[in-house]
Amino acid sequence: MNDAFFHGRKVIITGGLGFIGSTLARRLVGMGANVTLIDSLIPQYGGNIFNIEDIRDRVRINISDVRDPFSLRHHMSGQEVLFNLAGQTSHLDSMNEPDADLEINCKAQLSILETCRQVNPAIRIVFAGTRQIYGKPDYLPVDEAHPIRPVDVNGINKTAGEWYHLLYHVNYGMPCCVLRLTNTYGPRMRARDARQTFLGVWFQSLLEGRPIQIFGTGAQRRDFNYVDDVVNAFLCVAASDTAAGKVYNLGSNEVVSLKELAALLLEVNGTGNCELVPFPDELKKIDVGDYFGDFRKITTEQGWQPVLSLREGVKRTIEFYRQHGKHYWD
Amino acid sequence: MNDAFFHGRKVIITGGLGFIGSTLARRLVGMGANVTLIDSLIPQYGGNIFNIEDIRDRVRINISDVRDPFSLRHHMSGQEVLFNLAGQTSHLDSMNEPDADLEINCKAQLSILETCRQVNPAIRIVFAGTRQIYGKPDYLPVDEAHPIRPVDVNGINKTAGEWYHLLYHVNYGMPCCVLRLTNTYGPRMRARDARQTFLGVWFQSLLEGRPIQIFGTGAQRRDFNYVDDVVNAFLCVAASDTAAGKVYNLGSNEVVSLKELAALLLEVNGTGNCELVPFPDELKKIDVGDYFGDFRKITTEQGWQPVLSLREGVKRTIEFYRQHGKHYWD
Repeated sequence: MNDAFFHGRKVIITGGLGFIGSTLARRLVGMGANVTLIDSLIPQYGGNIFNIEDIRDRVRINISDVRDPFSLRHHMSGQEVLFNLAGQTSHLDSMNEPDADLEINCKAQLSILETCRQVNPAIRIVFAGTRQIYGKPDYLPVDEAHPIRPVDVNGINKTAGEWYHLLYHVNYGMPCCVLRLTNTYGPRMRARDARQTFLGVWFQSLLEGRPIQIFGTGAQRRDFNYVDDVVNAFLCVAASDTAAGKVYNLGSNEVVSLKELAALLLEVNGTGNCELVPFPDELKKIDVGDYFGDFRKITTEQGWQPVLSLREGVKRTIEFYRQHGKHYWD
Repeated sequence: MNDAFFHGRKVIITGGLGFIGSTLARRLVGMGANVTLIDSLIPQYGGNIFNIEDIRDRVRINISDVRDPFSLRHHMSGQEVLFNLAGQTSHLDSMNEPDADLEINCKAQLSILETCRQVNPAIRIVFAGTRQIYGKPDYLPVDEAHPIRPVDVNGINKTAGEWYHLLYHVNYGMPCCVLRLTNTYGPRMRARDARQTFLGVWFQSLLEGRPIQIFGTGAQRRDFNYVDDVVNAFLCVAASDTAAGKVYNLGSNEVVSLKELAALLLEVNGTGNCELVPFPDELKKIDVGDYFGDFRKITTEQGWQPVLSLREGVKRTIEFYRQHGKHYWD
């Protein structure tokens, strides 16, 4: 169904060399879209040129920073869909370098929206928000009406970034939609450190024969989406005529504790071990404990739901990093 | 009671040449505090050197921008209390120049907090927040538990600014307190335009013999605090040992419609007239309708309540601008 919508469509992805951005690009290329990728390749972020190696000749790549308002004017003109995925994702980095987080997650977002308003207000925009803005949940599963109460600089700035998008919809009629992502995992996630997701490091440890380190008791329960499911959600709301101005949680019906997840990784891999280590102080302060999301709204209104099982997702991820790991942690 | 706390105390006020900042400075000087005022004197903001003419020799004035991190390090060292009032206040300007609003209301706030964390983490900080972050109220009066749902860029950025302060309390134990101000009025408010409050323009019109212009029907109900009452609230929470990490609404028991308020101004002034004019489109979009706040929390926990009647406040304000108006609108 989405295929017809995206065939020949001009699509631009900020953070296009990143984990989700590159996976989205591959799907769009397959559907015959005209795809432009913007990425800063900042070493601490998720951009990795290897992520698009197999589609390199079928996308337009522009290495630039979304904080650069002049290049943005050029890029946004004439595009039909913007998947706005560029962001600083590390919670810890946001506490240690709050200004850099603000520059990417607030200032650049506002700049992207202002540019689109000026040169291309009809462009459909899907913004990659985060469940992090809910903070420590009052109740589970967390639905979209849950209070917004971020516990770190990243959460505060991602809230502002999301709200700018909604404001530009309400005030200027721009077709912006927000997805609040939970833990996304799969091939091409950053794996050299925990800046994007702790899971990257877990897969690296597993494949390099080191124990998976679980912080704390490992009892925290979380939900996980395989990257292809997340890409489906982006495509689904971008192609929908009823998603403008809406906010949707993603999520999964498979909720597991971190200990259970580690056990699953070991089991699927066939070998390996894991250990509990004390929660680092600086992380403990901003940890939100149990989280899993209620994603019934996007299922009801847009027909999206995750389809891949956690076990199958883990299997595919292990296979990918077994083959390509060196491009992610060497 | 506050007098003893502030006597000899080293106090710094950002936005110190502004409406509330300068009124606060005058009170602090009267109590024997050692007062430093930081102000950028950006023409579109509230700073006005005339605001402190009578206390000029009893305060230290430094004209600089809170976006300048280097001067901040110098200023914040050795201070005991920071009244953090510097801000961009115009909702309309925030929509037309969102980046400038972000620079002042987000970036500079984070920079101030980071600087204090590094050079003076024990400094008591009171942040001037705003009721604007509630957006269009779900219920009235609005208490502190009301959802945060800003309707303009200024509201989004002021939310971030407030949340940074609370985060630096939770994460680093810094004694930060937030006051959410409603409409503050009185001597020394910006009166040449509606950038700080529409009331400034109303007083100017009244005293220059032009009709007071009421946008829309004038039926919107609002609450108003006289500036001395607001200053009392700042002093009260700064001197309190139980205010750190808290958020308090200000407000008033006198809730009036804009039409009633205009009538009161005319009555107290003894002459003048007013007219209803259509709501400008760009303002209508971001207007929140009726608003008045529930301020029982600060009354119960900190003992603050407004004491001056609206009539008496209007009277004093008219007297001030009758005498000094030329310094505010010529």
